[in-house]
Amino acid sequence: MKMKKQDRQAAIEKEIEANPFITDNELSQRFHVSIQTIRLDRSQLNIPELRTRIKMVAQQNHERIQSIEANEIIGYVIDIVPNETATSVIQINEDSVFTRNQIARGHVLFAQANSLCVALIHKPVVLTRESRVKFVKQVKLHDNVHAKARVLEVNEKYFYIEVKSYVQQTQVFEGTFKMYYTSEDETENG
Amino acid sequence: MKMKKQDRQAAIEKEIEANPFITDNELSQRFHVSIQTIRLDRSQLNIPELRTRIKMVAQQNHERIQSIEANEIIGYVIDIVPNETATSVIQINEDSVFTRNQIARGHVLFAQANSLCVALIHKPVVLTRESRVKFVKQVKLHDNVHAKARVLEVNEKYFYIEVKSYVQQTQVFEGTFKMYYTSEDETENG
Repeated sequence: MKMKKQDRQAAIEKEIEANPFITDNELSQRFHVSIQTIRLDRSQLNIPELRTRIKMVAQQNHERIQSIEANEIIGYVIDIVPNETATSVIQINEDSVFTRNQIARGHVLFAQANSLCVALIHKPVVLTRESRVKFVKQVKLHDNVHAKARVLEVNEKYFYIEVKSYVQQTQVFEGTFKMYYTSEDETENG
Repeated sequence: MKMKKQDRQAAIEKEIEANPFITDNELSQRFHVSIQTIRLDRSQLNIPELRTRIKMVAQQNHERIQSIEANEIIGYVIDIVPNETATSVIQINEDSVFTRNQIARGHVLFAQANSLCVALIHKPVVLTRESRVKFVKQVKLHDNVHAKARVLEVNEKYFYIEVKSYVQQTQVFEGTFKMYYTSEDETENG
């Protein structure tokens, strides 16, 4: 049964508050109305579109990132606890897929995960040493990919980080990264 | 002792013929003259600059590549024996390094190696399944990186490929890639 407009708008507002990264498509399925209706509801509620909401959250996170310039991160960092966990989002656009089959290119998912590992580590110098990755499921044009990074272990030279990436609830990628760091602003060769 | 100009130019021509991807810098060291002199020699010999030589060779190789559009390959494929070996070159530019330390970003070397694996396989559909990579040595702004891919094993579903990348004689990267392929133009999920 459809809700009354006022009730639906109140519910949408609550939903987005609880999950700021829900898509219009997901909202339309949840409330059994068209995407156009969702867009109109958002506009009347003065809630910006997903991309804008992601950027706003990412900007708040920039001050917690020491190892990399914000514009050098592949994806938007929407959640970060320095040296512990971080999450980023990218939307797969035309530049990120093979033209002939519209499947996302492997290095795009790798780049998202790898730069999230750099961003996560709160040190002035961070470099990737080793990585092992699996492309679990194909990612398509316009998919939103959430990458979740978690520090597994730290010693005096390296962070060991696990990254799992998802499109909605489905896992599409996993990787482990061994990241070298220094606390001073000097770099080591080799 | 310096060579006479005519002798030097003949020697440079021979050198570039033997090794079309030698840089002006390497030539200048080999013949104990300035880079400006090398450039003048090349111009008088009517030999184009390195980037142009690379592109010319890459274009000749495009017809031997079935799995990917030429403009989607990261780097120039300068040598390819389909389903056996391939080599590509990239020059590390400002977009490929971290601004703060001018070190090449990991995903750039990954992308070069990964797309070389796709190009190498002479099948209509090729996708990356797994990869293991090591960043052996730092790569700097303006370095030329040569990636060399070699098929280790093939079965009815997968190619296993090894890639080693070099700046001059120094190895900077190594990786293994497990690549899924189909002979028909259909793709499999999962």
